[in-house]
Amino acid sequence: MDKQDTKGLSRRSLFGATAGSVALAGSLPGRLALGLGGIGAVTAATSGAALAAGADGSIAPGQLDDYYGFWSSGQAGELRILGIPSMRELMRVPVFNRCSATGWGQTNESLHIHQRTMSEKTKKHLAANGKKIHDNGDLHHVHMSFTEGKYDGRFLFMNDKANTRVARVRCDVMKTDAILEIPNAKGIHGLRPQKWPRSNYVFCNGEDEAPLVNDGSTMRDVSTYVNIFTAVDADEWQVAWQVKVSGNLDNCDADYTGKWAFSTSYNSEMGMTLAEMTESEMDHVVIFNIEEIEKAIAAGQFEEINGVKVVDGRKEANSQFTRYIPIANNPHGCNMAPDKKHLCVAGKLSPTVTVLDITKFDAIFYENAEPRSAVVAEPELGLGPLHTAFDGRGNAYTSLFLDSQVVKWNIEDAIRAYAGEKVNPIKHKLDVHYQPGHLKTVMGETLDATNDWLVCLCKFSKDRFLNVGPLKAENDQLIDISGDEMKLVHDGPTFAEPHDAIAVHPSIMSGIKSVWDRQDPMWAETRKQAEADGIDLDDWCDTVIRDGNKVRVYMSSVAPSFSLEEFTVQEGDEVTVIVTNMDEIDDLTHGFTMGNHGVAMEVGPQQTASVTFVAAMPGVYWYYCQWFCHALHMEMRGRMFVEPKKG
Amino acid sequence: MDKQDTKGLSRRSLFGATAGSVALAGSLPGRLALGLGGIGAVTAATSGAALAAGADGSIAPGQLDDYYGFWSSGQAGELRILGIPSMRELMRVPVFNRCSATGWGQTNESLHIHQRTMSEKTKKHLAANGKKIHDNGDLHHVHMSFTEGKYDGRFLFMNDKANTRVARVRCDVMKTDAILEIPNAKGIHGLRPQKWPRSNYVFCNGEDEAPLVNDGSTMRDVSTYVNIFTAVDADEWQVAWQVKVSGNLDNCDADYTGKWAFSTSYNSEMGMTLAEMTESEMDHVVIFNIEEIEKAIAAGQFEEINGVKVVDGRKEANSQFTRYIPIANNPHGCNMAPDKKHLCVAGKLSPTVTVLDITKFDAIFYENAEPRSAVVAEPELGLGPLHTAFDGRGNAYTSLFLDSQVVKWNIEDAIRAYAGEKVNPIKHKLDVHYQPGHLKTVMGETLDATNDWLVCLCKFSKDRFLNVGPLKAENDQLIDISGDEMKLVHDGPTFAEPHDAIAVHPSIMSGIKSVWDRQDPMWAETRKQAEADGIDLDDWCDTVIRDGNKVRVYMSSVAPSFSLEEFTVQEGDEVTVIVTNMDEIDDLTHGFTMGNHGVAMEVGPQQTASVTFVAAMPGVYWYYCQWFCHALHMEMRGRMFVEPKKG
Repeated sequence: MDKQDTKGLSRRSLFGATAGSVALAGSLPGRLALGLGGIGAVTAATSGAALAAGADGSIAPGQLDDYYGFWSSGQAGELRILGIPSMRELMRVPVFNRCSATGWGQTNESLHIHQRTMSEKTKKHLAANGKKIHDNGDLHHVHMSFTEGKYDGRFLFMNDKANTRVARVRCDVMKTDAILEIPNAKGIHGLRPQKWPRSNYVFCNGEDEAPLVNDGSTMRDVSTYVNIFTAVDADEWQVAWQVKVSGNLDNCDADYTGKWAFSTSYNSEMGMTLAEMTESEMDHVVIFNIEEIEKAIAAGQFEEINGVKVVDGRKEANSQFTRYIPIANNPHGCNMAPDKKHLCVAGKLSPTVTVLDITKFDAIFYENAEPRSAVVAEPELGLGPLHTAFDGRGNAYTSLFLDSQVVKWNIEDAIRAYAGEKVNPIKHKLDVHYQPGHLKTVMGETLDATNDWLVCLCKFSKDRFLNVGPLKAENDQLIDISGDEMKLVHDGPTFAEPHDAIAVHPSIMSGIKSVWDRQDPMWAETRKQAEADGIDLDDWCDTVIRDGNKVRVYMSSVAPSFSLEEFTVQEGDEVTVIVTNMDEIDDLTHGFTMGNHGVAMEVGPQQTASVTFVAAMPGVYWYYCQWFCHALHMEMRGRMFVEPKKG
Repeated sequence: MDKQDTKGLSRRSLFGATAGSVALAGSLPGRLALGLGGIGAVTAATSGAALAAGADGSIAPGQLDDYYGFWSSGQAGELRILGIPSMRELMRVPVFNRCSATGWGQTNESLHIHQRTMSEKTKKHLAANGKKIHDNGDLHHVHMSFTEGKYDGRFLFMNDKANTRVARVRCDVMKTDAILEIPNAKGIHGLRPQKWPRSNYVFCNGEDEAPLVNDGSTMRDVSTYVNIFTAVDADEWQVAWQVKVSGNLDNCDADYTGKWAFSTSYNSEMGMTLAEMTESEMDHVVIFNIEEIEKAIAAGQFEEINGVKVVDGRKEANSQFTRYIPIANNPHGCNMAPDKKHLCVAGKLSPTVTVLDITKFDAIFYENAEPRSAVVAEPELGLGPLHTAFDGRGNAYTSLFLDSQVVKWNIEDAIRAYAGEKVNPIKHKLDVHYQPGHLKTVMGETLDATNDWLVCLCKFSKDRFLNVGPLKAENDQLIDISGDEMKLVHDGPTFAEPHDAIAVHPSIMSGIKSVWDRQDPMWAETRKQAEADGIDLDDWCDTVIRDGNKVRVYMSSVAPSFSLEEFTVQEGDEVTVIVTNMDEIDDLTHGFTMGNHGVAMEVGPQQTASVTFVAAMPGVYWYYCQWFCHALHMEMRGRMFVEPKKG
């Protein structure tokens, strides 16, 4: 390895150059020199506490939303942050998708996160297809980590149904920090964190039936198929254990004691066709006994499959790990009420929601009680019940897919009606537009459930917005639930296809940062390489290291300049560009784009990011900052010289 | 080629299966059978004409926005459609980015569009980097096609600064239908369509200086560098001609006679460093004489470089193709007023906007008049003027990047002041938050300029929204300009980094479709292959064709089923899945995701889409519909069997 000659700028000469250009601007003495520093002054005058929203949820300019909304994005593969009640998209966080703006799926830091737990099988598939990672995902569910039944602002967890993965986003920087390909299971759908005592586990449902050892040795013999329930260790982001189940798994939830987890199954038949999957009048919800599973794992009573500890919770195994409670045709949503007691299972093809009293599960497990002895209510609510949300007053809100309605009902009244009293649990029905799926109250999946807003995620918008062609937005509708009757106040178009969302009070997000910590583990691997190269990443960098045909270009950025205004490589070199943003000002993100090379990445304040490519084209190529950073942002660029291969 | 045995469903048996599952749903006779048909009835009752917005731009549920907003997305690489004044995102249209949801950048149809004009050089680079296409872009400017100075609703045009490309989106289906890699030029930045008589050309600025033949034979000798202005044939989507210029090119515009195009240059110095680029007190705007260029091209007076006709418009060439009008330090925005007469060039490092009277250009070209004789006003507006928008009352609105303000000024008053009259052209200044770039009135770049809304695209949001981490949203602010003073009414957070936008009245978008035409050219290549395979794509398909190790799987979809519930391939086969969505209902998009294969695509109503992958992993894999389509959407899935390689 040897250091090349570069035409680098020292920190001193860089600031000199900027100052020089300012002086030359002639007509602007003084104020231009403020540069972005000027923003701070403006800022202070307008910042302030969140103010109340308008009746339609609108937020006046400069006021803050009342709540964070964390939104899944379905097949778009990203996490979205919205403001509630304004329903404005505040940020997109790439997770399973390839993001052109941030370089997610291209930077070395993101590739490392993607590849860390990738199976050999997936690697083989990707290699055969000329790819490094999967660049799509189907992110249905996003949930926050809990401590004692309440959101704790540490992590967000989410699934990828498309490629059987789960991911974790750090809430301090709002970036994905871990992805896990789950072995044995197929098509992770429902996902929920443990609520009590804290989220030690994230529970993940395998939706798709397939041979456990899926190597082609058995394919058409459905008796070899099995579905898998997975508990992921939320801290280590690796599989803690798995449970084989009967039937498939759809949505799931966990209770407020830490004892139980639950999953619906719409294909208890293990049917392989639409007709077969919908054949039985009754399917089921599976109850998982966490304590019994942990006991077996600790006692070594498991099978190891693909490096994972697996126990058998299928019906025929007669274990203490699971019980199967029959639920009418094709149940879908599975929602634990904040009363700590009632689990609501939506019927989908049945007009009912089945209410289970979880305090009766012990008897089912240990006293041989009938599985349906836990049913304490089964109100008939309307057609196509999919999911249920809760307020802090004992009410439930169920989406009716076929009726295109939300129905507000009272859990205690439903229980009294089921017991024979003449009481109508249904309090109100509201038309939504159209075909609702998930719906969410603010912190309604925690012990902090509020009574102000309900967001209903509708699957179709049809004519609700200006026509934008054959592909139309979904429609996330904001509903005021503060009164006796629900009131629709806002239509929120969203790109394909947010399935689910949560809403979180800003006080829970107090750990969120505006500037990266230089010691952040996100670029730990890059730091290790820099140390080996004798580079101090925390200091000014303007060095090019050659290591065989690998070239590492270390540079720093301070608005409006990169430390290196040029560097030279040879045709065919594998070039890694490592950029550290030395600016420490809020919102002063830089970028690095290499022109005509399909290379671009985000470099936030005090962040280090890196990207590797093969320089295959001799010639001159400009790199530039693509995140507007300064009045002289356009001039923040430099040249890469690619010298032609000799002879 | 031979047809394989498949376990296909005939159209008849498919409908039978669906009906059967409905019948089996027991408790739901009748209404479930409505399925999505039921949406239509709901729809009719709620559709209607656009109603007036609230004073803050809010739109009540079920009401339509007054205008379409077409938004660039900078380094996100996509086109966005917003509603104005609600500022809601109605749709994302992938262009240069890889889209997880739609399969853009993965489907064969999108790869064909990407690769059609790709240079050999780019292909070589991509091959060396294991990629098929560039999966990022830097989309700054989006503009609609014109007919006689007004938007005509045919196309949207946009640039990719990152990879020197331009793209076109069809307004009937709102999908990208053509991408062009522009030879010779580097870093396409400013882009504008010809306004008169119609958009025969799209003018594209090459921002980055580089050797014209950029093969490494000359790299450090800046005298060999040249910048290129390109006219793209908007109908054929290929280069019509190019002009070599002196200095670099930044933003551009065209006039209302079809005679002129204009580009700003912030680097007339041809400097290679920040200090050099900002050295001169004066830079320039280039005036292009379209008629003279066309004449030369027709007469064969051009040089052919990389298959493109190039004329020399550099200063030293003394041609009739260009004139260079000096403008104070580092001009940026370049905006033609709807009065058909005045071009406004923003100073960036000068506090002025220079107003040029285009009727004086003939004298500069043909009578040797001084270049600056066209200057009729030069109002001092504030610090960091970047861009200017116009209303229909003779007013201009200029963004002041450093002052974080929008200044409203009157063009005629500025001309009178320049002529010596004691009149203040400045009418009002409004604080914006923070550091504005482009700003747009409704149709203010056409002869239909209105007087209602101004959108100001701010580069920083700082504390205007709930903190979402180190990366923060931009802030697109909505300003009411109907009165004498501007009024800020809404803050609109947006993901990185919309540079530009236009607003268009819905009457112009009357050709927009909700269902694809089966004869659409988007899948013409796919249709050709189907015909060769003896498959009628417009009829029910459930056929698997083997062609050596290539397997083509033709299937149809009708909610909630694919025609094929399973198909079989061999390990190592190159599998192409071609799906035609037979549903004809508005908003009934299907999708096709192949589990664990990183494969997913959108299939709109009556659309055909296809995707190709190598089946490298023996075993059972479920494919499914990822666009919610029916109560039994979850059950819309089937199995691919990958048989292990023998021996």
